[in-house]
Amino acid sequence: GYEEEKITEISNLAQKNKVTWINVVGLGSEEKIKELGTEFDLHPLVVEDVLNPAQRPKFEVYDDYILFVVKDFNYYPKNQEIKKEQLSIILGPDFIISLQEQRTNTFDFINKSLAKENSQLRHRGADYLAYRMIDTVVDNYFVVVEELGNFIFNLEEQLIEDSSSEILGELQQLKREIISFHRLVSPLRGLIYSSNFKDNQLFTDETFVYWRDVDDHLSTVLDKIQMFRDIVNGMVDTYLSNVNDNMNQVMQVLTVISTIFIPLSFLTGLYGMNFQYMPELGYQYSYPILLGVMGLIVVTMLVYFKKNNWL
Amino acid sequence: GYEEEKITEISNLAQKNKVTWINVVGLGSEEKIKELGTEFDLHPLVVEDVLNPAQRPKFEVYDDYILFVVKDFNYYPKNQEIKKEQLSIILGPDFIISLQEQRTNTFDFINKSLAKENSQLRHRGADYLAYRMIDTVVDNYFVVVEELGNFIFNLEEQLIEDSSSEILGELQQLKREIISFHRLVSPLRGLIYSSNFKDNQLFTDETFVYWRDVDDHLSTVLDKIQMFRDIVNGMVDTYLSNVNDNMNQVMQVLTVISTIFIPLSFLTGLYGMNFQYMPELGYQYSYPILLGVMGLIVVTMLVYFKKNNWL
Amino acid sequence: GYEEEKITEISNLAQKNKVTWINVVGLGSEEKIKELGTEFDLHPLVVEDVLNPAQRPKFEVYDDYILFVVKDFNYYPKNQEIKKEQLSIILGPDFIISLQEQRTNTFDFINKSLAKENSQLRHRGADYLAYRMIDTVVDNYFVVVEELGNFIFNLEEQLIEDSSSEILGELQQLKREIISFHRLVSPLRGLIYSSNFKDNQLFTDETFVYWRDVDDHLSTVLDKIQMFRDIVNGMVDTYLSNVNDNMNQVMQVLTVISTIFIPLSFLTGLYGMNFQYMPELGYQYSYPILLGVMGLIVVTMLVYFKKNNWL
Amino acid sequence: GYEEEKITEISNLAQKNKVTWINVVGLGSEEKIKELGTEFDLHPLVVEDVLNPAQRPKFEVYDDYILFVVKDFNYYPKNQEIKKEQLSIILGPDFIISLQEQRTNTFDFINKSLAKENSQLRHRGADYLAYRMIDTVVDNYFVVVEELGNFIFNLEEQLIEDSSSEILGELQQLKREIISFHRLVSPLRGLIYSSNFKDNQLFTDETFVYWRDVDDHLSTVLDKIQMFRDIVNGMVDTYLSNVNDNMNQVMQVLTVISTIFIPLSFLTGLYGMNFQYMPELGYQYSYPILLGVMGLIVVTMLVYFKKNNWL
Amino acid sequence: GYEEEKITEISNLAQKNKVTWINVVGLGSEEKIKELGTEFDLHPLVVEDVLNPAQRPKFEVYDDYILFVVKDFNYYPKNQEIKKEQLSIILGPDFIISLQEQRTNTFDFINKSLAKENSQLRHRGADYLAYRMIDTVVDNYFVVVEELGNFIFNLEEQLIEDSSSEILGELQQLKREIISFHRLVSPLRGLIYSSNFKDNQLFTDETFVYWRDVDDHLSTVLDKIQMFRDIVNGMVDTYLSNVNDNMNQVMQVLTVISTIFIPLSFLTGLYGMNFQYMPELGYQYSYPILLGVMGLIVVTMLVYFKKNNWL
Repeated sequence: GYEEEKITEISNLAQKNKVTWINVVGLGSEEKIKELGTEFDLHPLVVEDVLNPAQRPKFEVYDDYILFVVKDFNYYPKNQEIKKEQLSIILGPDFIISLQEQRTNTFDFINKSLAKENSQLRHRGADYLAYRMIDTVVDNYFVVVEELGNFIFNLEEQLIEDSSSEILGELQQLKREIISFHRLVSPLRGLIYSSNFKDNQLFTDETFVYWRDVDDHLSTVLDKIQMFRDIVNGMVDTYLSNVNDNMNQVMQVLTVISTIFIPLSFLTGLYGMNFQYMPELGYQYSYPILLGVMGLIVVTMLVYFKKNNWL
Repeated sequence: GYEEEKITEISNLAQKNKVTWINVVGLGSEEKIKELGTEFDLHPLVVEDVLNPAQRPKFEVYDDYILFVVKDFNYYPKNQEIKKEQLSIILGPDFIISLQEQRTNTFDFINKSLAKENSQLRHRGADYLAYRMIDTVVDNYFVVVEELGNFIFNLEEQLIEDSSSEILGELQQLKREIISFHRLVSPLRGLIYSSNFKDNQLFTDETFVYWRDVDDHLSTVLDKIQMFRDIVNGMVDTYLSNVNDNMNQVMQVLTVISTIFIPLSFLTGLYGMNFQYMPELGYQYSYPILLGVMGLIVVTMLVYFKKNNWL
Repeated sequence: GYEEEKITEISNLAQKNKVTWINVVGLGSEEKIKELGTEFDLHPLVVEDVLNPAQRPKFEVYDDYILFVVKDFNYYPKNQEIKKEQLSIILGPDFIISLQEQRTNTFDFINKSLAKENSQLRHRGADYLAYRMIDTVVDNYFVVVEELGNFIFNLEEQLIEDSSSEILGELQQLKREIISFHRLVSPLRGLIYSSNFKDNQLFTDETFVYWRDVDDHLSTVLDKIQMFRDIVNGMVDTYLSNVNDNMNQVMQVLTVISTIFIPLSFLTGLYGMNFQYMPELGYQYSYPILLGVMGLIVVTMLVYFKKNNWL
Repeated sequence: GYEEEKITEISNLAQKNKVTWINVVGLGSEEKIKELGTEFDLHPLVVEDVLNPAQRPKFEVYDDYILFVVKDFNYYPKNQEIKKEQLSIILGPDFIISLQEQRTNTFDFINKSLAKENSQLRHRGADYLAYRMIDTVVDNYFVVVEELGNFIFNLEEQLIEDSSSEILGELQQLKREIISFHRLVSPLRGLIYSSNFKDNQLFTDETFVYWRDVDDHLSTVLDKIQMFRDIVNGMVDTYLSNVNDNMNQVMQVLTVISTIFIPLSFLTGLYGMNFQYMPELGYQYSYPILLGVMGLIVVTMLVYFKKNNWL
Repeated sequence: GYEEEKITEISNLAQKNKVTWINVVGLGSEEKIKELGTEFDLHPLVVEDVLNPAQRPKFEVYDDYILFVVKDFNYYPKNQEIKKEQLSIILGPDFIISLQEQRTNTFDFINKSLAKENSQLRHRGADYLAYRMIDTVVDNYFVVVEELGNFIFNLEEQLIEDSSSEILGELQQLKREIISFHRLVSPLRGLIYSSNFKDNQLFTDETFVYWRDVDDHLSTVLDKIQMFRDIVNGMVDTYLSNVNDNMNQVMQVLTVISTIFIPLSFLTGLYGMNFQYMPELGYQYSYPILLGVMGLIVVTMLVYFKKNNWL
């Protein structure tokens, strides 16, 4: 059966039920955790890993139990926030210990399932419960992936409209988040296929199918992350190319204006000289003829620019 | 024998023929699929995978059957369109179940073969039929590869003619499609060589030769995709270099015009000054001499530019 | 013994000699090839591969024979041309079948060797003959490598002299050819070390030494190709840097001319104004003093540019 | 028991205690080290490795002992300095020899532990002591990682404020340090999983758990280094993009000023010409009308620039 | 014992001593080498490899002997030159054959060792001698690495001082030399760990330790080469960035000069117009006021440029 109770004495917990699930929230009291470790005969290194908030994600096989350390991402729709929490799970033959710093909504669905009389969770072993926990965590990764996808999508739209240099900053920031997320997910992939998992008695053939499914989901998550990296790299290229295009356009305007007016200005300068002997100055139609010549120069230039696609 | 019939009761399907092929079109009714799963004793995860339209392609070995999930691309010449459909195949010792959302033309040829009395398909086991299905799907990949090839070819021709910034957008889009296609094909490669396939009794030595052929075709498809990536990256480089060349040309025109006329304008400015004591102003041949000097400057400049290949 | 003869009946070919070599030129008649396949008990997929002109190169082990598909490059010095031909070789215990579309000069040397009474080829098994064929094909790859090397060398010399944008096109073209050549050679490397080759009775320990040598040559070819890729990438970088340098030089000329003459022109403009009260205009030495000031400005600028290495 | 004593005769050291730890500081006297090697029956290559200050980090299994060579980084908070020292450890069944050039504070904590009567270190074998040493060294890596992280963080802040070209130099320098640190850490990773470690009798199953933990920490360090590389590469991109942006801005200012004033200057030049027959010159409102036209041109230009986001 | 003698008859060499070392200098006489091959029962392919001056480096196991082909780099301090020579070594159970085209100083130290009565080389098997040869060759690689390091160091210093485009050429050349050196060293790494080496009776457990040491040195050489590649790539980036910086600076000077003087020139042009009705022209203080306005414009501009860090 499944009953929730407040723990007072750790020592007589382990024997009580067929499968005991101890969920520890709050890792501040190092003493209590160590006591728990002693009670369940856990290796000192396991306790150390559990207490280290920057522990690398891993599945690790010990003689009598398996340690799972994963990063758990919980999305809170109210304030549109994703919170990262480290979740450690220790799976023994007839017990399961889960430890985290803050209470999250990860176990909500599992608790509901357990409350039902005829749920699978109640009739299967501890390994199935561990699978359900890890599965929930991995499913949460998809929410993060989706959020990242939305963010990329928005940034892409922004990129088309304007390419101010802040976008590059956001792209670099996004890249870093993708890399960081990748680092937290990738170490878990393929672990269950290693020989010390396959040979472990805690992994029955029956449950192995489920773990394979988890690995499959991890692969999908990692595939998506890899795709995001490629997309973001493409976006950086597009940004740099846009900046270049813009510069190109600026240069062309400068060149068109300059090359049209510089020769004209020369001509005006020519007839602004104060030489006493310049026959053109006294000729009656000099001015309109010069204006005509200038018009001709302008037209020629414009035709040339048109031909070179500068306008 | 091979007969098409409308299914009413799933339960008495499995026993009827030596090899039973059930083709399910439309995955909307989750209930029916689950009922089918119960009938054929399929693992709940298999049913889940089949119902998940975003399932990653895979070949997965279970105790009594093999699950194939692939993406099926169908080209419709009428409206020049490629439609993507997820196809799941469950291969058992004496049955085969294929599931997809929409009816495609993938099985047309297989149906024709089955209709013939003396076709190989009729006299071989379920595994041969599965091979033929997957083979058809992989053959369809070649159509996609060809379409991508044509698109690249067209873009290349466009790239030579003009290099407006829209082409970069199209190149990035193309790159993304290639990456996405790669993601749907690559997970399948080499799978059949893994040990759990080789040791499976559903994979007779006789059929293994055929699966090896499928893997060979997948390799060719992936080779082509890799080549496309290299080509498209080269095209992006070419585009950026064209843009650069264009800018270079613009700069050169600006420089040529400026460096010729700026010194000339200085000279006209010089003799446009209003100093009372400027001996040159009163000299009779000043004007033609200055024009000669200006002509000399122009010629010198042009020779210099010619030597530096700026013209 | 070794005798050439015109084939009329395929069926009684196989029994005639200890080792039978059938060389098929021209794959147009699909019927005949299939008949040959039936005679030698070849798998339908083998016949399919042989008839597919775009087959990926591979060595493939079947129960009673091995299929080799390679791309054969023949250099014809007369018209300085390299022709690509697909060559399929089927090696059985006492027969060898070679198939190609067009007659090439690949087998010329083998034929000469066979014509000699005491040549090794006559006294060794079919596997040695197959080795000699593949070895000749791989040796031809070195010719292609050399040609590519020459082409790269020429392009490099061109690159030093001028860097017009056509060179970039040629570099991209060269890159693509290198990639394409790599794709045709790389799938063969290391194949002979795979377990199904080592365990095959057609690969005696004695011949294995020879196949290892072929693999060694393939490695050398692939090493060279890899080096070519690195070199061509370096050339693209050099080209882009040259273009940049050129632009830099253009900009410097523009800047030098502009920054010298723009202040001078301002001064001429200043004394070209028509104000009635400008004391300098009436002063007798204004003009020579101004010319001196201008000369000073020019000298100062030139010294500054010299110091900044812009001249 | 654990007692510190001054060594006079090496020869009778080995037999004295159950587990003998010899800590050699200063490798100047090659003779003494060789004598030690002879005493403990060490392979000449081991002595050579120990004496080579540029030895690559490695774990190496010999018949009767294991050689560990690692780079030990010690942070001295007083002068904010990180010193690198090579530490060699030779682990035998009942002895452990540690060798370094300079005394560091790496063993301080171990010495304190040994001094306590009931510490684990006293009651476990030599392999546990070796683990504690390597573990301390690896823990020191985290200090280096943190220092690198701080340095990167500072550089990032600097990068936002100004992007002078010295920052690029610092980034390249940082990149090199990261690469160099990576080179000293990476060769150790995964070594303990190799077969000759697992089969070694010096590695009891009990201690293996500890070594796995060390490997886990190494993985974390390498993960961080990899992340640093990605970040620094992103910073170089940001720097180059900033430089580009700056150039862009400079070009825009030039273009705006030039394109506004060049046409205006042309107009002033036009009416500065000295033709005798120019009707506008004598018209009374020519000057204010011209001023108005010029104002109109300026306004039009500004509107155009605004629309193109150049202002 | 060790005696040097002039060889006249190859045939009775092999039986004479316990371990026979034949050192062949000069590979011109193909006949002699083949005779040697026949005498020692070498495979024709071995003779072919030895005679091919462009043979890829390799360690290759045959039934009764092992073939080593390496590139031997000798540094001649006199003319500061590095010469590359191919060295082939054939190691049999009781003989060792070394072949090279030119006499090098690689064996000088080995010869000296052999001359000593009580040297290890005299009392160990042929495999130890082979190890010493290969070890000497690998030690020579460190000399090349050092030379490359010095060259890179010099180039780096040059890069800081000036960044003319010749440096890019030298960098590309250096890159190519590094790649080429990498190609000659890398194929040897890890070879001794392959199964056919470990199972070979010519590789006693005793000597294996030495070969592992050689592999360790190769790893160090390859590590260094990899680091050199990273450094040179960083240098290319620095060069390109310097060029960019320079261009930027040029552009800024142009912009500063242009934006200051273009508006001033406009003003001078304005008052250089010849309109009859321009009230400012007759006003007494027009000229000093205009000069004041111009000074104000210059000051404003300079302040703006200062604020934007363009000066």
